[in-house]
Amino acid sequence: MKKLRTVFIDKKSTHPLQVQLSDQLKAMIQTGQVSAGDCMPSTRDLAAQLKISRNTVVYAYDRLIGEGYLDSHPRSGVYVSQSAHELRSAIRRSDRQKEKQSARFVPMQEFPQAPKPFRPCQPDVGLFPLPMWNRLRGRMLRGNHRNLLMYNSQFVLGFRALRENVAAYVRDSRGVACEWWQIAITSGSQQALYFLAHLLLKPDDRVIMEDPGYLGAVRAWEAVGARIAFAHVDEQGLRLPAEGVQDASVIYVTPSRQFPTGASLSLPRRLALIKGAIEAKAWIIEDDYDSEFQYDAPALPSLQSLDSGRCVIYVGTFSKILFPSLRLGYAVLPQALIDPFTALKSTAEDHGPIIDQATLAAFLESGAFYSHIRRCRRNYAERQNVFLDHIDKYELPLDFRYRNGGMNLTGFLPRHINDREWSLRLKKAGLDIPALSSYARGVAESGLVFGFTAFSPAQIRKALEQFARLRPASIQ
Amino acid sequence: MKKLRTVFIDKKSTHPLQVQLSDQLKAMIQTGQVSAGDCMPSTRDLAAQLKISRNTVVYAYDRLIGEGYLDSHPRSGVYVSQSAHELRSAIRRSDRQKEKQSARFVPMQEFPQAPKPFRPCQPDVGLFPLPMWNRLRGRMLRGNHRNLLMYNSQFVLGFRALRENVAAYVRDSRGVACEWWQIAITSGSQQALYFLAHLLLKPDDRVIMEDPGYLGAVRAWEAVGARIAFAHVDEQGLRLPAEGVQDASVIYVTPSRQFPTGASLSLPRRLALIKGAIEAKAWIIEDDYDSEFQYDAPALPSLQSLDSGRCVIYVGTFSKILFPSLRLGYAVLPQALIDPFTALKSTAEDHGPIIDQATLAAFLESGAFYSHIRRCRRNYAERQNVFLDHIDKYELPLDFRYRNGGMNLTGFLPRHINDREWSLRLKKAGLDIPALSSYARGVAESGLVFGFTAFSPAQIRKALEQFARLRPASIQ
Repeated sequence: MKKLRTVFIDKKSTHPLQVQLSDQLKAMIQTGQVSAGDCMPSTRDLAAQLKISRNTVVYAYDRLIGEGYLDSHPRSGVYVSQSAHELRSAIRRSDRQKEKQSARFVPMQEFPQAPKPFRPCQPDVGLFPLPMWNRLRGRMLRGNHRNLLMYNSQFVLGFRALRENVAAYVRDSRGVACEWWQIAITSGSQQALYFLAHLLLKPDDRVIMEDPGYLGAVRAWEAVGARIAFAHVDEQGLRLPAEGVQDASVIYVTPSRQFPTGASLSLPRRLALIKGAIEAKAWIIEDDYDSEFQYDAPALPSLQSLDSGRCVIYVGTFSKILFPSLRLGYAVLPQALIDPFTALKSTAEDHGPIIDQATLAAFLESGAFYSHIRRCRRNYAERQNVFLDHIDKYELPLDFRYRNGGMNLTGFLPRHINDREWSLRLKKAGLDIPALSSYARGVAESGLVFGFTAFSPAQIRKALEQFARLRPASIQ
Repeated sequence: MKKLRTVFIDKKSTHPLQVQLSDQLKAMIQTGQVSAGDCMPSTRDLAAQLKISRNTVVYAYDRLIGEGYLDSHPRSGVYVSQSAHELRSAIRRSDRQKEKQSARFVPMQEFPQAPKPFRPCQPDVGLFPLPMWNRLRGRMLRGNHRNLLMYNSQFVLGFRALRENVAAYVRDSRGVACEWWQIAITSGSQQALYFLAHLLLKPDDRVIMEDPGYLGAVRAWEAVGARIAFAHVDEQGLRLPAEGVQDASVIYVTPSRQFPTGASLSLPRRLALIKGAIEAKAWIIEDDYDSEFQYDAPALPSLQSLDSGRCVIYVGTFSKILFPSLRLGYAVLPQALIDPFTALKSTAEDHGPIIDQATLAAFLESGAFYSHIRRCRRNYAERQNVFLDHIDKYELPLDFRYRNGGMNLTGFLPRHINDREWSLRLKKAGLDIPALSSYARGVAESGLVFGFTAFSPAQIRKALEQFARLRPASIQ
């Protein structure tokens, strides 16, 4: 039995005692102060010697047994592993590296930070009924004997009950024509766009999309080498190119509320778009990212509902309704794409985390989802009003053309005002208000994009005061 | 105030009352039985009329307000939305479809099923300390004012604290030379392989991998159009091709325990492999999928530790240590790959779910992780013994060559026995024991791959009895 005389425990240190102990024991093994085959003191003895709880010693031993430094022999004791020295040479090298850094737990300030006003597309996570979510999660975990922890290759496109509930939801609320087996649950809508890019596009194929538009989509098309034809946006949304869509393979559009301007795609354009896509044998990808947040009239039914999903692939997300770090989105796949999508997803990640999916299924089913949407809608409508009422006071040349809903308001500026310069100046002062032209690849109108949903009325008023003070000299 | 005389609530139905009510109200709006602008009965009145709880009515109204059928006017009441009729035409079409299907919550039998004996690579999720996991999850959620619910673009490669803890873990336990910023958290190790395929390979590039080998990796290389050179496997693991590795771009290998045979890559071959890869300017991808489960001696240090990560990319997973539906894996990236990997991940899905990542960080930090590994190791070692002791009794021509650890045992068979036929016969009888040759593309040895970790000693004994009864006629 070895007496470990050099171990020292600092009870005032912020490092957990068990970590202090296991680190020192490991160092003693690595440096040869104790040798392979040496018997370690009993947990009782070492605890008494160091005047710490016996559990602390048990944890430290467990950790070193887990890492192969110690061996436990039932009814005989704990020994330095015979092969501990084999570990040394490789570990010594990485230990030198380790000195330069801390393996300690990261302090709280490195946690995600709240968005700054007026970061677009951010929900107020304070409105989310987290206790209810956690209760439903617990219920799902208890309800099925831990089977939710298991792998199941049937769930490549998502947890079955979630797919059913998403199908019911998009049918009811958006008129989407679909069956549950057409729903593919993805890691945010971004993953859906990326997979669709791989399935629908070859290098040099042509994609038509809005300009300004969603840059995450641009990256998805570029990842597969597609050529992007950027189409202008006006008060009726995407303006189809004069030459038509004949040579397009994919048309990507945000019809409910064009991102980032906020214009809604008019019905005549919707019909023309579908007609054009069918003639060109092109796919339309409809990104319906925030249509839940409609404050006056209900949103127009989805584009997908107009053609019953013959050429429209509907893509949605829960990141903006629930909370962004959940990372759950979905696509409604036409039948022909289900098998290829499944094969690609199975190769690219297999199924996603199932506990969250099961919790969301229960959340949808319980009705808590609808109450939450209602609560958000009420709060966001109020915030939009506070924003618009308040900004009027400052008599700025910002034209808020589209005010019918959503999470963002785009203030259009006269052409002579450089929106990027203003945005940069705001950024330096702690305000996060992107320039409209930063979403564009071609000639864009000047403007600023304000997200108002993540901020309380008081925050909105305060940030707007600050914003108004930072107006460029040209509009004093 | 409208009296709703046709609503009928069936308290004996299995459908929740609030769903019965909201479905009927919605139908009345859609069919025009109530009109836009009609005032709905108060929740109190309708509850009294239907003899149900007032909360049920509140929930049903909330749901319909959420979907835009009803409007709530504070201090005045709830009205049929002015624009409800606009929703009708699109919804009518999808309602016809809806009749064919059920939007109800999926009953429990459609939850994931437990694996059948002897499905390979399945942990026993019953050993997982789920209450501790849930406590840590709650602590992380409470600890930072809901910021864990937010999006944070800094976390494309994972939650910072998790990356630090994974780096510390692979340094300590596997000798991996790395800093925290080299860790990329992925959706299972499969996503890491898929991204690496995209970053390291062009069409027709050559990949060398083991045969038999991991089919998920085959799919990843095939997804980018690479040519795969399958190399034989013997008792020292991957046998490098006689012509060398000169024209290879990637060498994919499972050195700790070759999947599925279980052979460990010998030290001379490890050194030759690294030398060859450096000369060929090829990358080695080291898939260390289950090296935690070593029952006799500690595993050899990782291949990555032998070259300090100059040409070796280390890939690991928590699916097998913790639970499969968590879907968290990681890659240790050489510095040159960090930026391209970040760009690709940001395009393909952005960051993954953060709450699970934060929980895992706390789980690693707490030491519970190491206790859990130790508990698994103890149980799995016992199960391996039970398996091997018991199967000996039946005097089958199965040769279990590699017994030093892992989650699986491969029984090699004499060449004249058709392993696929036997496996199929077992499958029909409810046993899930893949044929060794089903993992191979070239000429493979005959054998059966048994996973023993997910099953209790009693289950193992019972399933082995059944297995022995199903032996082919050729070995009666």
